[in-house]
Amino acid sequence: MELGIIGLGKMGGNMAERLRRGGHTVVGYDRDTSVSDVGSVEELVGRLAAPRAVWVMVPAGQPTADTVHRLGEVLQPGDLVIDGGNSHYVDDQKHGADLAAKGIGFVDCGVSGGVWGLENGYALMVGGDDDNVKRLMPIFETLKPEGEFGFVHSGKVGAGHYVKMVHNGIEYAMMQAFGEGYELIEASPLVTKVPETFLSWQEGTVIRSWLLDLLNRALVDDPELDDLRGYANDSGEGRWTVQAAVEHAVPLPAISASLFARFASRQDDSPAMRVVAALRKQFGGHAVESIGDGDSPGADVDPPKV
Amino acid sequence: MELGIIGLGKMGGNMAERLRRGGHTVVGYDRDTSVSDVGSVEELVGRLAAPRAVWVMVPAGQPTADTVHRLGEVLQPGDLVIDGGNSHYVDDQKHGADLAAKGIGFVDCGVSGGVWGLENGYALMVGGDDDNVKRLMPIFETLKPEGEFGFVHSGKVGAGHYVKMVHNGIEYAMMQAFGEGYELIEASPLVTKVPETFLSWQEGTVIRSWLLDLLNRALVDDPELDDLRGYANDSGEGRWTVQAAVEHAVPLPAISASLFARFASRQDDSPAMRVVAALRKQFGGHAVESIGDGDSPGADVDPPKV
Amino acid sequence: MELGIIGLGKMGGNMAERLRRGGHTVVGYDRDTSVSDVGSVEELVGRLAAPRAVWVMVPAGQPTADTVHRLGEVLQPGDLVIDGGNSHYVDDQKHGADLAAKGIGFVDCGVSGGVWGLENGYALMVGGDDDNVKRLMPIFETLKPEGEFGFVHSGKVGAGHYVKMVHNGIEYAMMQAFGEGYELIEASPLVTKVPETFLSWQEGTVIRSWLLDLLNRALVDDPELDDLRGYANDSGEGRWTVQAAVEHAVPLPAISASLFARFASRQDDSPAMRVVAALRKQFGGHAVESIGDGDSPGADVDPPKV
Amino acid sequence: MELGIIGLGKMGGNMAERLRRGGHTVVGYDRDTSVSDVGSVEELVGRLAAPRAVWVMVPAGQPTADTVHRLGEVLQPGDLVIDGGNSHYVDDQKHGADLAAKGIGFVDCGVSGGVWGLENGYALMVGGDDDNVKRLMPIFETLKPEGEFGFVHSGKVGAGHYVKMVHNGIEYAMMQAFGEGYELIEASPLVTKVPETFLSWQEGTVIRSWLLDLLNRALVDDPELDDLRGYANDSGEGRWTVQAAVEHAVPLPAISASLFARFASRQDDSPAMRVVAALRKQFGGHAVESIGDGDSPGADVDPPKV
Repeated sequence: MELGIIGLGKMGGNMAERLRRGGHTVVGYDRDTSVSDVGSVEELVGRLAAPRAVWVMVPAGQPTADTVHRLGEVLQPGDLVIDGGNSHYVDDQKHGADLAAKGIGFVDCGVSGGVWGLENGYALMVGGDDDNVKRLMPIFETLKPEGEFGFVHSGKVGAGHYVKMVHNGIEYAMMQAFGEGYELIEASPLVTKVPETFLSWQEGTVIRSWLLDLLNRALVDDPELDDLRGYANDSGEGRWTVQAAVEHAVPLPAISASLFARFASRQDDSPAMRVVAALRKQFGGHAVESIGDGDSPGADVDPPKV
Repeated sequence: MELGIIGLGKMGGNMAERLRRGGHTVVGYDRDTSVSDVGSVEELVGRLAAPRAVWVMVPAGQPTADTVHRLGEVLQPGDLVIDGGNSHYVDDQKHGADLAAKGIGFVDCGVSGGVWGLENGYALMVGGDDDNVKRLMPIFETLKPEGEFGFVHSGKVGAGHYVKMVHNGIEYAMMQAFGEGYELIEASPLVTKVPETFLSWQEGTVIRSWLLDLLNRALVDDPELDDLRGYANDSGEGRWTVQAAVEHAVPLPAISASLFARFASRQDDSPAMRVVAALRKQFGGHAVESIGDGDSPGADVDPPKV
Repeated sequence: MELGIIGLGKMGGNMAERLRRGGHTVVGYDRDTSVSDVGSVEELVGRLAAPRAVWVMVPAGQPTADTVHRLGEVLQPGDLVIDGGNSHYVDDQKHGADLAAKGIGFVDCGVSGGVWGLENGYALMVGGDDDNVKRLMPIFETLKPEGEFGFVHSGKVGAGHYVKMVHNGIEYAMMQAFGEGYELIEASPLVTKVPETFLSWQEGTVIRSWLLDLLNRALVDDPELDDLRGYANDSGEGRWTVQAAVEHAVPLPAISASLFARFASRQDDSPAMRVVAALRKQFGGHAVESIGDGDSPGADVDPPKV
Repeated sequence: MELGIIGLGKMGGNMAERLRRGGHTVVGYDRDTSVSDVGSVEELVGRLAAPRAVWVMVPAGQPTADTVHRLGEVLQPGDLVIDGGNSHYVDDQKHGADLAAKGIGFVDCGVSGGVWGLENGYALMVGGDDDNVKRLMPIFETLKPEGEFGFVHSGKVGAGHYVKMVHNGIEYAMMQAFGEGYELIEASPLVTKVPETFLSWQEGTVIRSWLLDLLNRALVDDPELDDLRGYANDSGEGRWTVQAAVEHAVPLPAISASLFARFASRQDDSPAMRVVAALRKQFGGHAVESIGDGDSPGADVDPPKV
């Protein structure tokens, strides 16, 4: 079928390519004219026959909001917008309502797959009305991996990005689990073969997984992970996951611990720990710097000769 | 080669069978005479030619300690004991030292694979001296899965059970991650297709894994997980993982959170939360039951008509 | 000075009383006519001489928003609104801006003190412009406890409720700390005098605190805390604290753990733990219910007689 | 009464002084001859009339074990040993049993109070048999603070150190709570008066406490806590608390988070976070360094001009 795509970066460009290989007609727009098929969003819309479908693949937040708003101005009733970016599900609900007021449909689609997606397909998690999702099935069928998995219509508008957000939350905790396990193994004087141990786990274990495979690729290149600093960014989705949990009163100890560990990894010095250090210092009173945990008898006492 | 096995339960019995299929000569002992090849540990030792190798596959703790001790009495210098159970790595170090004093070798081996191991092989994590491990390689080669993974000689005596312990700690956090994600998805009114979402994740996602496959098997049988209570036991290995982290001063927030969530799942009522409830009640003073969080103005105030 | 108060519930009513005892002229409005001095917000405004100050003490959220909005309609430039409720600091910023557009000042004030405040004074945390706060100092001086502490002008509009929110977050973790300690002491067979231990801690210890005093009041009445269930509600401020931490990328492991423990305390059954239970069941394969942690050899094996 | 004290460091020396001021006869031994009353443990025992009581106040672990062992050699049946150090409760049980085999009594005593104890008294938490504790009451009465609190006989041998250990665990979480709150307040652009806010909390709030008072002393000296690094040591008691929780299957999320935060504060670089960073890098494939969270479309896409 015919599809407009706005945003032809690494993800959007590869998705356009996979769709074309699958026989679809794709008209792409990007502000980078070297990759764009058209000169403007308006021209892109003009190149598609009604009822149109336009896939938005630009950064979440203001860029996506601006693009959806612009499409609301230039599309016609009966047309359809798909947000395939990493949007917050709360924004989807607003975008869906705004477009619905103009008779334009809206579907949100969480996409997983990274640079492997072009060849292997993208996992797609979709939210929206049944009719709109049904209309887009030829596109989804081409984008998704072969086989029975990798696509789900999870629920109403917002559900696609909601479950993608939770997917990423789970991912945070799985990454943290491997990190903690690695550190604990590295800490033991008993274990002399750390990367070999992780490699061996790829078969027969309970924790075998794609993330373990990725970790092992990293360990093959850099067995001590010496080329890296213990510094981890986070994306919006990890934060939104914790905020959704707070909103729904869902206990989320492992995922939140994983997010907080990333926050802490980016601090040169922790103000919270300065407070703890200050309190420990106070225990000793003004006369001394520190006597351990404040009430630690004998911390400065030589043991008697017995 | 020739191997004695003590303990022919689900694991030991299947391992004996896999070894026999692989051409090894196995003499097994179990107190259940219906499965035992011999009538006693002494008889088992008598049936093996020196230098002997005896695999212990009995419950961790006292049963394993008793068995290792008994083998120390009946084996000869040059013989070899393998502990393939779920022993604490601290016990390995003691058992290894005790046997070494008698000239008997000791190797510890963490085993993963469960009921699938008979057909698919067992992931093996081994600790011990190079010579001893080398002598046992024919056994390990048969027990492990086909292919290049699934076996590692991780380090000194204790290293095998240590890394198997950490493997299980990682497993705890991965299971908790899926649990938290499931609960958060189930809590959202946007999502109407919960089990379908998890099924779809089996391809193309970052979190695809054997544990996800298992979860999906469970969801196919029982889409709402209605037949289960949110009650989870823990094994020694999860606890030892946290204790090892404390000993090595390794931060372990996600794995410990996962262990504590299991503890909490088994409580009918939480004494800690009774304290929190008691404090909340006290905020209100003696005259009232509760005014919210103690200093919550207007919690009992009707909004004015404005 | 002269002050209007909207909302004469437990908090607002006591604050009005403390202000009158302190020589101020208070005109109060409540929809409950039995406690109200006037019949409407309009009448209240009519009873005050310009420039007026009106203290809003109604539930956070819509009731406060409605009241602030109504005051924006009936007050005049130069007048001043104080929100003394438990509002979210984000709402303060909106309310302040809306009123500023009409030339009306806005000050937010977090209040702590509960039912003891009438006699002992209220701890006040204030946000707003210096001029506005200065104008209100006679009121704050009367409401606050005697002595040098209990009042702070923390910063801009919103700062008062922000620091009160964090105060409550700290409170959550302190309450959780006592809860965890209580449970751990109760779990030990060594300790036979649990409430006596907590009572003794009121003097000479590092953890002596008002919360410990409150806990001990509870333990005197109910030494085993038998009359209570381990069920704890949470207020908006605990949740907002975690959300603010996520927004500011501040690691908040102890406070978030405390919030999540309250969430969990209110669940009859945990969906997350049903997932963990389902996974544990799957480890055993279809043929068996459970073999412990899946790959737990010998969990069902009797130890040999040795 | 008459008491021997072994270990005359900051704690032991002050306790000896407080006892002498209270009219007791104290014979002290320390390997530092400048403070010691006697030349050896044997001489100390010789200076006391039977039945003797000897208070051990030396570092926990081997020094205490050695001292208790030596006393077992030189004391007589009917004598009594008190361990007032920071011993692990597990050691108490061993020491108590060893001495009991020789007819010598044993009492463990957790002590809180630091450098203020000499003037204000020490909070004492005691474990042991009723008879032994009763015999020592004159000593405890003098050491404890005035008033009805500050002393408890919590239970059997080990109970004193057990509850002191939990006291310190609670202390860890309270310190962490203040640390997290401080960091969150410091992170907000709304709040311009951070130390003033903490100072104000000393009266009228729910979180008023001795730890808050100490923090405020620190903030008065160093309002930005600039002289400190966010680096916090931990003592044995925090670790033992988490280990006891694991042993008793008690969920301890806030206290364990506090311990782990201290561990993390001492790391220059986190191996766990290197793993997370390595995985994030792998998401991008070999061709690129990173595309955000792996499957983050458009992270490198400029938004279109719309």
